[in-house]
Amino acid sequence: MRDVYIIGVGMTKFGELWDKSLRDLFVEASLQAIENAGVDHIESMYIGAMSTGLFVGQEHIASLLSDYLGNEGIPATHVESACASGGIAVRQGYIEVASGISDIVLAGGVEKMNDGADVTFALATASDQEYEAFHGVTFPGLYAMIARAHMEKYGTTREQLAEVAVKNHEHGLKNPNAQFQMAISRDTVMKSTMVADPLRLLDCSPVTDGAAAVIICSEDVAKKSGRPMVKFRASSQATDSFALHSRKDLASLPSVARAAEKAYKEADTKPEDIDVIEVHDCFTIAELVVTEELGIVERGKSGAAVEAGITRLGGKIPVNTSGGLKSKGHPVGATGAAQIIEIVDQLRGDAGDRQVTDARLGLAQNMGGSGGSCVIHILEGMS
Amino acid sequence: MRDVYIIGVGMTKFGELWDKSLRDLFVEASLQAIENAGVDHIESMYIGAMSTGLFVGQEHIASLLSDYLGNEGIPATHVESACASGGIAVRQGYIEVASGISDIVLAGGVEKMNDGADVTFALATASDQEYEAFHGVTFPGLYAMIARAHMEKYGTTREQLAEVAVKNHEHGLKNPNAQFQMAISRDTVMKSTMVADPLRLLDCSPVTDGAAAVIICSEDVAKKSGRPMVKFRASSQATDSFALHSRKDLASLPSVARAAEKAYKEADTKPEDIDVIEVHDCFTIAELVVTEELGIVERGKSGAAVEAGITRLGGKIPVNTSGGLKSKGHPVGATGAAQIIEIVDQLRGDAGDRQVTDARLGLAQNMGGSGGSCVIHILEGMS
Repeated sequence: MRDVYIIGVGMTKFGELWDKSLRDLFVEASLQAIENAGVDHIESMYIGAMSTGLFVGQEHIASLLSDYLGNEGIPATHVESACASGGIAVRQGYIEVASGISDIVLAGGVEKMNDGADVTFALATASDQEYEAFHGVTFPGLYAMIARAHMEKYGTTREQLAEVAVKNHEHGLKNPNAQFQMAISRDTVMKSTMVADPLRLLDCSPVTDGAAAVIICSEDVAKKSGRPMVKFRASSQATDSFALHSRKDLASLPSVARAAEKAYKEADTKPEDIDVIEVHDCFTIAELVVTEELGIVERGKSGAAVEAGITRLGGKIPVNTSGGLKSKGHPVGATGAAQIIEIVDQLRGDAGDRQVTDARLGLAQNMGGSGGSCVIHILEGMS
Repeated sequence: MRDVYIIGVGMTKFGELWDKSLRDLFVEASLQAIENAGVDHIESMYIGAMSTGLFVGQEHIASLLSDYLGNEGIPATHVESACASGGIAVRQGYIEVASGISDIVLAGGVEKMNDGADVTFALATASDQEYEAFHGVTFPGLYAMIARAHMEKYGTTREQLAEVAVKNHEHGLKNPNAQFQMAISRDTVMKSTMVADPLRLLDCSPVTDGAAAVIICSEDVAKKSGRPMVKFRASSQATDSFALHSRKDLASLPSVARAAEKAYKEADTKPEDIDVIEVHDCFTIAELVVTEELGIVERGKSGAAVEAGITRLGGKIPVNTSGGLKSKGHPVGATGAAQIIEIVDQLRGDAGDRQVTDARLGLAQNMGGSGGSCVIHILEGMS
């Protein structure tokens, strides 16, 4: 297997984009990525999306979007793993280039969630239809159970959950592509509408439209492009028991630990070497548990860590400098690709007001459902 | 890139399987494939399915199905390209093993279409929602336009279309897994209910439940297994303009020609060297056009060829010995994987009453929508 690089990134603004369709969004992000990479063609495409069938009544989107992007006949593949679709699309692009089959691949994700569909039903199809969704459990409910378990087992507080939202909104304020560019206080989170006890409205990521894409290539292509190169140090993927009732410990997310172990080994690195991290904070509790599984905070101490500012911009290990899913928004299929873009921006020194000084190694963690699937990438800036 | 092999196959019976769920079907096929391969573990999974969201209200199926198959935490990825999903899942498995990332991958497809969903709507999401489906065009309508164009341009007759169905039912009669195990006459086809002029009911593949899976592995694993090995000689994929109105010639399917050209080149072979072929006969006209695009019959002469028995079992180049989508059934996401199983069975001499004598090279052609995507595999028997 050969080394693989990212040389271009592109994304739309995230938000309620009523005047843009699925195809508009993906083409906008892709053209930006192609221009940013300075390449004149691509050889193959991977597109992550969770459920364009339920959201906009359109399947077969890889063929559709390669056509709308103006490509004549290249292979194009849609991959789906609920909210981990975007990260897995990037992984498939990585594998294709690593194998030597292609030299330049576009990989990204898209979701058009605001289009009149029953979003709660569509999202619930990422949980177990027969044992969870059918009985009325939705994702806020599933993550509320995880939160309750974590509070019970480790003494995590309601206030610490709120701090995750406060921090991520503070970061999102510095991100022009974020859906919510506004600061919120701990008090605002604590008084927001109850959704599924203990999770309140401001613990939840929003419903978002958006797309993100990256250009993945071989070392030869990367060097010829003259663009700042970011190298894949690891790409790993794992699964876990699908439904919560099958898990031994609700306060953990084993798919994240599995993927992280493989990723650190592949990259020959340790959690403490990573300079900047994007994690899948679909709910505030998710960020806490994931930071523990990644080994960047001690088991059970993630609440105290966020309160102490360790994961804040300027802290020891900044997490979700983009604003995370909470503030940047969460167009489910696009999220994993957008996380990688934030890491690439940080490693290239392109992150503007939210730049982490001297960031060299970055990690993006993207997951599906209640952690049934997880994909992790470790990237290194080469400049 | 290293050589890649198939050493195990498994599939459910195809049909209206009201007592089996999506997960039942995929697990049944997968366990058969694992047993047939004689392996004690798999390292990764790829699952093709078109729209489990619309058919059964379940997304995130790769995580679900790896759990139900009893795997602890392995990477599992769902790929979708409408009716080409199964073939592309096999291609992704091939790429992963070729890259060296994994040594043993399970790849297959599944679709549970008989479960109360609006199947016509769900299938129409494989066409252009904004320019085709929204206006009421369904797949029989789209393929009827292709049939009309072919009849007009090349003089293909209504009777020749019927001959495809007659031949494929004749083959399906010899396949215990086929949905329809009954012979039909040309007259029965010609008198069946009109669906979209000139296509009648018996020109159309049925609505089917089913699953199919194969075990893909490295040469080392294949040799150790002691099982009859089938080698990938080529794996190629292509796209085309998505909607029919964008195409220059409705009587052709350029994605098939593109994928075929790449596949023959990669396999260093020619159409006349192939011993047995499975093609995507979602409608009778599709088989005719595809055999032309593959170069096994002359352009415009596919109708005459089927009438002359050239593509019949015992003919010069048998096409759809399994019964094809028409008689074997068409669980959309599983179809591409099931085609590959028929080729593997033929190359291993396991095809029973429908065995092609001395079959050494086989080709499987699987496509999505009205040819917006296509994937082709050329396989070689090693015994």
